[in-house]
Amino acid sequence: MDRRTFMTRTALGGSLAASTLAAPAYAQGKRTLTMVTTWPRGFAGVHDGAQFVADRITALTDGQLTMDLKAAGELVGPFEVFDAVTSGQADMYHAADYYFVGQHPAYAFFTTVPFGMTAQELTTWYYQGEGQALHDKLGEIFGLKSFLAANTGAQTGGWFRKPIEGPEDFQGLRFRMSGLGGQALGKLGASVQVIPGSEVYQALSSGAIDGTEWIGPWADEKAGFQEAAPYYYVASFHEPGPGASVAFNREVYDSLTTSQKQLVETVCQAANGWGLALFDANNAAALARLQAGGTQLMEFSDDVWDAFAKASMETLDGYMDDPLFAEIRTSMTDSMKTTADWISRSERAYLSQRNRVLG
Amino acid sequence: MDRRTFMTRTALGGSLAASTLAAPAYAQGKRTLTMVTTWPRGFAGVHDGAQFVADRITALTDGQLTMDLKAAGELVGPFEVFDAVTSGQADMYHAADYYFVGQHPAYAFFTTVPFGMTAQELTTWYYQGEGQALHDKLGEIFGLKSFLAANTGAQTGGWFRKPIEGPEDFQGLRFRMSGLGGQALGKLGASVQVIPGSEVYQALSSGAIDGTEWIGPWADEKAGFQEAAPYYYVASFHEPGPGASVAFNREVYDSLTTSQKQLVETVCQAANGWGLALFDANNAAALARLQAGGTQLMEFSDDVWDAFAKASMETLDGYMDDPLFAEIRTSMTDSMKTTADWISRSERAYLSQRNRVLG
Repeated sequence: MDRRTFMTRTALGGSLAASTLAAPAYAQGKRTLTMVTTWPRGFAGVHDGAQFVADRITALTDGQLTMDLKAAGELVGPFEVFDAVTSGQADMYHAADYYFVGQHPAYAFFTTVPFGMTAQELTTWYYQGEGQALHDKLGEIFGLKSFLAANTGAQTGGWFRKPIEGPEDFQGLRFRMSGLGGQALGKLGASVQVIPGSEVYQALSSGAIDGTEWIGPWADEKAGFQEAAPYYYVASFHEPGPGASVAFNREVYDSLTTSQKQLVETVCQAANGWGLALFDANNAAALARLQAGGTQLMEFSDDVWDAFAKASMETLDGYMDDPLFAEIRTSMTDSMKTTADWISRSERAYLSQRNRVLG
Repeated sequence: MDRRTFMTRTALGGSLAASTLAAPAYAQGKRTLTMVTTWPRGFAGVHDGAQFVADRITALTDGQLTMDLKAAGELVGPFEVFDAVTSGQADMYHAADYYFVGQHPAYAFFTTVPFGMTAQELTTWYYQGEGQALHDKLGEIFGLKSFLAANTGAQTGGWFRKPIEGPEDFQGLRFRMSGLGGQALGKLGASVQVIPGSEVYQALSSGAIDGTEWIGPWADEKAGFQEAAPYYYVASFHEPGPGASVAFNREVYDSLTTSQKQLVETVCQAANGWGLALFDANNAAALARLQAGGTQLMEFSDDVWDAFAKASMETLDGYMDDPLFAEIRTSMTDSMKTTADWISRSERAYLSQRNRVLG
């Protein structure tokens, strides 16, 4: 964390001001909430999701709550938002919780894990299964109250300068992939690179790396990866339906009125579905453009998927000595199996037939 | 419509009161909105969706808007809600818009049509494509302002006393199916029965009908169909992702404040995703119970699907002389194709591999 920014900020307000100052606006029930994010301003999709949450809360409370949205770097750096909110420097964050696996590995489940849930499976577990309660249980450790508030849909396998013929092709491959998926790729012998987003295009086009995953067709096309690598593996194992979350400093959340609490929950639920639609619409259009522009859409072969699965399970198994990680993984896996069986027999079987008959 | 109820009601208030009476509560900005529905009180899933909308609007406005939820028959009959809202007898409805194809055939698209959209495809078209704008265009004819506000997920093919071996088995089959799907089945020679929900179990168990579709495992199990027919065709062609909508009387909607309008939109967006999760969670659990209880889960063969598709396209083509129907069908179909290609290559390809590898 940037200590200078921290000192400046705490003098200005945020949750500390809310709980200690008798400012005229606050006395009238009006207050400003500072929301920090892990997203650069204007970053397609995910920043839009944070903006949706901020704008709706401000609009729906008729000025009782005014949101002050601080994009990555505007108050703190992107990966400092967790500490900023737990310390009270900011009131809440909008972020992908898997950035905070250093704080607790179980945060991965509230974004995505390799061979984990799709967006619809995650939503089902979160709203109707144990997901929200387990997110709360994890948040109690850090003084956070979280809500699912965005989803990117399935992320893509990424861009390769050469086709992947089998799992042995990952041996020594210099590939950019973050998170648990990156750990799994490392088990296949890849030289996993963690490169900031702003530097990935240069690394790929210069040949410093052999490939990269990023987000999906919409963001990937904006980044220009299609100019630097011809092969685009669309389906992937590592991020099948990443969610993003809003997390409040618990004291700030507790100080909201009952209707404000419900309003925040409702806005986050709306953001979740709205955001997935935003990604699907733009990813679909971008994928069609990429294909028309000559990008070769690829699928990993079954033996590559087998290797991904083995490495992913080993990666997840490595955290099972943490009881809360184990509890959340078991709950997630059980819910996923039941939901997947239903959706596989109904919606997916329908889609297979619709594709077969109508093309 | 029940004229006596109508006269009593208009004397009491609703939108007419809002626009003409200077009652003390209204002068303070407080008002009550009457929402009628097509769902019997307590009807699993869909009534829950209407209740979610009503409760959230009441809670989030801190008493400025109090929702008075009238289930089917409490103010008007289920299929009278459209006229009740357009006439101003009620302020808004929560309903499946395909009940109103008699008012305009294009209302089918905002619930579901045979070989149409899944829940995720519908949401993508509605929020990020032309869906909402076309719903508005349709609503202008009737003085309605609508929002997508629920989804049941894919509905099931239904319960059969004998297996379906080929499309010829529908010849003369006495089968309960409503809507455009029923019209398509009629083209296959089925004797399509339209039977009120409360009478379907008796008809099936007595042998008066040979089979029925209803909703999905959750509702079907509650209705007890598993006791009357052994074969359950899970995937189906006729209702791949039915949405339900909230529709306001346009004058009532226009009289809301800007923040109230955004609040209603947000609550409906939240209800859409929350409701789908509710159905998926309960359908998944019920399907597992039905299977454990001896119900035989079935899939229609390819030649049956081919026949479904031919009959469905003929059914939809029959309405294409209506320009607005044609415009909305074209928009829906275009959006569906692009979104489906993306989801097929990403999420569905992932799910196929996850199922193959992990089971």
